[in-house]
Amino acid sequence: MNPIDILVTNGTVLAMDQDHTVVENGAVAISGDRIAGIGPASSFSSHNVAEVIDARGGIIMPGLVNTHNHAAMTCFRGLADDLELMSWLQDYIFPAEARLTEKKVYHGALLACAEMILSGTTCFADMYLFEDAVARAAKEAGMRAVVGEVLYDFPSPNYGPIENGFSYTTELIDKWQGDELITAAVEPHSPYLCSPDLLVEAAAVSEASDVPLIIHVAETRSETETIRSTYGKTPVAHLGDLGVLSPRLVACHCVDLTEDDILLLRQKNVKVSHNPESNMKLAAGIAPVPRLLEAGVCVGLGTDGCTSNNNVDMFAEMDMAAKIHKVNCLDPTVMDARSVLRMATIEGARVLGLDGQTGSLETGKKADLILIDTNKPHLTPMYHIESHLVYAAGAGDVAATIINGRLVMKDRHLLTLDAEAVMAEVNEIAKDILGG
Amino acid sequence: MNPIDILVTNGTVLAMDQDHTVVENGAVAISGDRIAGIGPASSFSSHNVAEVIDARGGIIMPGLVNTHNHAAMTCFRGLADDLELMSWLQDYIFPAEARLTEKKVYHGALLACAEMILSGTTCFADMYLFEDAVARAAKEAGMRAVVGEVLYDFPSPNYGPIENGFSYTTELIDKWQGDELITAAVEPHSPYLCSPDLLVEAAAVSEASDVPLIIHVAETRSETETIRSTYGKTPVAHLGDLGVLSPRLVACHCVDLTEDDILLLRQKNVKVSHNPESNMKLAAGIAPVPRLLEAGVCVGLGTDGCTSNNNVDMFAEMDMAAKIHKVNCLDPTVMDARSVLRMATIEGARVLGLDGQTGSLETGKKADLILIDTNKPHLTPMYHIESHLVYAAGAGDVAATIINGRLVMKDRHLLTLDAEAVMAEVNEIAKDILGG
Repeated sequence: MNPIDILVTNGTVLAMDQDHTVVENGAVAISGDRIAGIGPASSFSSHNVAEVIDARGGIIMPGLVNTHNHAAMTCFRGLADDLELMSWLQDYIFPAEARLTEKKVYHGALLACAEMILSGTTCFADMYLFEDAVARAAKEAGMRAVVGEVLYDFPSPNYGPIENGFSYTTELIDKWQGDELITAAVEPHSPYLCSPDLLVEAAAVSEASDVPLIIHVAETRSETETIRSTYGKTPVAHLGDLGVLSPRLVACHCVDLTEDDILLLRQKNVKVSHNPESNMKLAAGIAPVPRLLEAGVCVGLGTDGCTSNNNVDMFAEMDMAAKIHKVNCLDPTVMDARSVLRMATIEGARVLGLDGQTGSLETGKKADLILIDTNKPHLTPMYHIESHLVYAAGAGDVAATIINGRLVMKDRHLLTLDAEAVMAEVNEIAKDILGG
Repeated sequence: MNPIDILVTNGTVLAMDQDHTVVENGAVAISGDRIAGIGPASSFSSHNVAEVIDARGGIIMPGLVNTHNHAAMTCFRGLADDLELMSWLQDYIFPAEARLTEKKVYHGALLACAEMILSGTTCFADMYLFEDAVARAAKEAGMRAVVGEVLYDFPSPNYGPIENGFSYTTELIDKWQGDELITAAVEPHSPYLCSPDLLVEAAAVSEASDVPLIIHVAETRSETETIRSTYGKTPVAHLGDLGVLSPRLVACHCVDLTEDDILLLRQKNVKVSHNPESNMKLAAGIAPVPRLLEAGVCVGLGTDGCTSNNNVDMFAEMDMAAKIHKVNCLDPTVMDARSVLRMATIEGARVLGLDGQTGSLETGKKADLILIDTNKPHLTPMYHIESHLVYAAGAGDVAATIINGRLVMKDRHLLTLDAEAVMAEVNEIAKDILGG
């Protein structure tokens, strides 16, 4: 084994690997950016270890993977809630977004990174405008991220006409190629805001560069009706006929699906990002996730942007995912804690094509992990770790966050970002939004 | 004004009163156990004030009211999840409860009080066995509580046959009469576990002592089917025909209601406790709360016991209540943040007959209030206070809790309970449960 840089010890290791490995009184050794070993705490010596992190009997687990975010929307958190979708978009979100700048997106994304790190997320996928700023923010925060500029038929406040959108996207891919934290993706908005030509070209760019293709699909019944009336088929079938469905495709939301859609997603090995809090708050509907899982579709969890949530907290998302499907199916056995926890970790990594790097604790993988402090009234007693993490734990229970072998948060203090400065910048942006 | 004992200042006061009063840069003055004044911070002098609490720009609001709990079930938190209801009850919960003792209930209730105080709840209603132990625990924690021994047709692990259940109940009412924190109530379990005679006698005791009558009603479709097949009517109609419906009745769950049931609840001014997380996790169903509110029924929020939740966190309950009805009604405007916040505060107090004492910040009411620390990434920026509290804030954001004029938590440290000792006791109980 290489020399150990960080030894995280004295906790229960929940590996989230294929074998559901749990090591009581365990430890994880980190060398450089990778996991060098996992085992009983007694099997590691802290001699010559640069940093020993005491889990104090808590849980050592993989960092959470947020498969769908619009990070910079933190700038609009709580600006407009409890409204009809069209009023929300047209009276609040679109006018605010029309006045976006790269600087606002950068600071908004930094704030989201601060929140994500504090709530145990180590990797996120993002879709927005000025996405290079999101990549720079994630890099500065020390977070793993998949970033992509949103592409649609109408002119963008960032790049203008769609041709420029594609050149922006290829430049983003080239710029971040080989980066240890950032992956650039191709991100057409949705079947209803993207022409068939746009969708086909986006798929071609994604294939040529072998990067993820991320899109919103079948988010609402109204979207399905629009696509049906225009193309005579469901959104998923429409994408299928255009040749856009592939294992690289991340289909976000997937609320309004037919059984044929589900089988097609499975056949093409399309990945799905499930966003229950957003779907509930916007009254979009309930995605048929138990059926998707039964059909063998790979499903991860995502928060969506925090205007429709209103946080980017994956613990709240797990709790919601576990509960909404039980009541929807009138069956308390669906979406058990382990399945939900897998969606928030290893399955989420698989959705983003990063399961070789992150999402579970395994020797040789990147060291993306978090500690949960379980010595709290609401986490006492402890019968089942997985159940506790899904149903009882919260964002505030994350005691430390390590990404790519780097300690980025300890004892609720951010080590890569100045939280006060980040909040102050976004508070200034909010004043501008209210005055605008 | 009387001399000020505690001045909570330098925050935004959200009074939750009839006029939706909000005081920016405000303060709340406390004399003894009561609110002595509310106004701009500049209108109060801290001269001669025994304790000044700086809200540091956060939110000063009423403590949350949890209208339905089985506090001592903290002992079984996470013991058995994701199971069929009958397996959950018969294989896990009933065997564990058969071995309950007053001591276990006392320590379990103390743990629940610790968790509730840390998550901003200042008042709760409880139904369980050995309920005098719950009253003693709440008193020791400094919490306001409505307590009642559960009554049903079969012998109880506490009191034995039902006659003793009624004498235990009347003794409980006599013992706690006039207490500044504790109210005893009469608590028959449900129409399916209580004979008509039991229900009628319970209602008579509640009326004679003028205390709340608390019951589970219409929690599942299966309950409705049972009552229909036995009595030929819905659970609510059955209670109505027995003369049990009254303004003192707190009907918990109310998931499976007909329109006639709703009108009857309104006509009799019955109060409803809505428990969305429990109803979702146990796959009971979704209560028609928007319709209940529209009909003019008073509805409060409750967590239910933490085996079906798995915490007693009212912030999580508010978020769930706001979102589940939006998606169920496919309407993002239902259950807006203000309505949900009222259910968690003043309407909850009204449910328990305590709205003259607690649930809003008004001069002369008992001083039950909490501080929210908003200087955090996930609460930045701040456009709308009510929206933030329901959709973005969490239990960990509560910076201080005051109940009956007494500071019981500050900066996340409990001042009335030794958290480590309370957790240690319940961890011992858990060992016994696993070994049993």
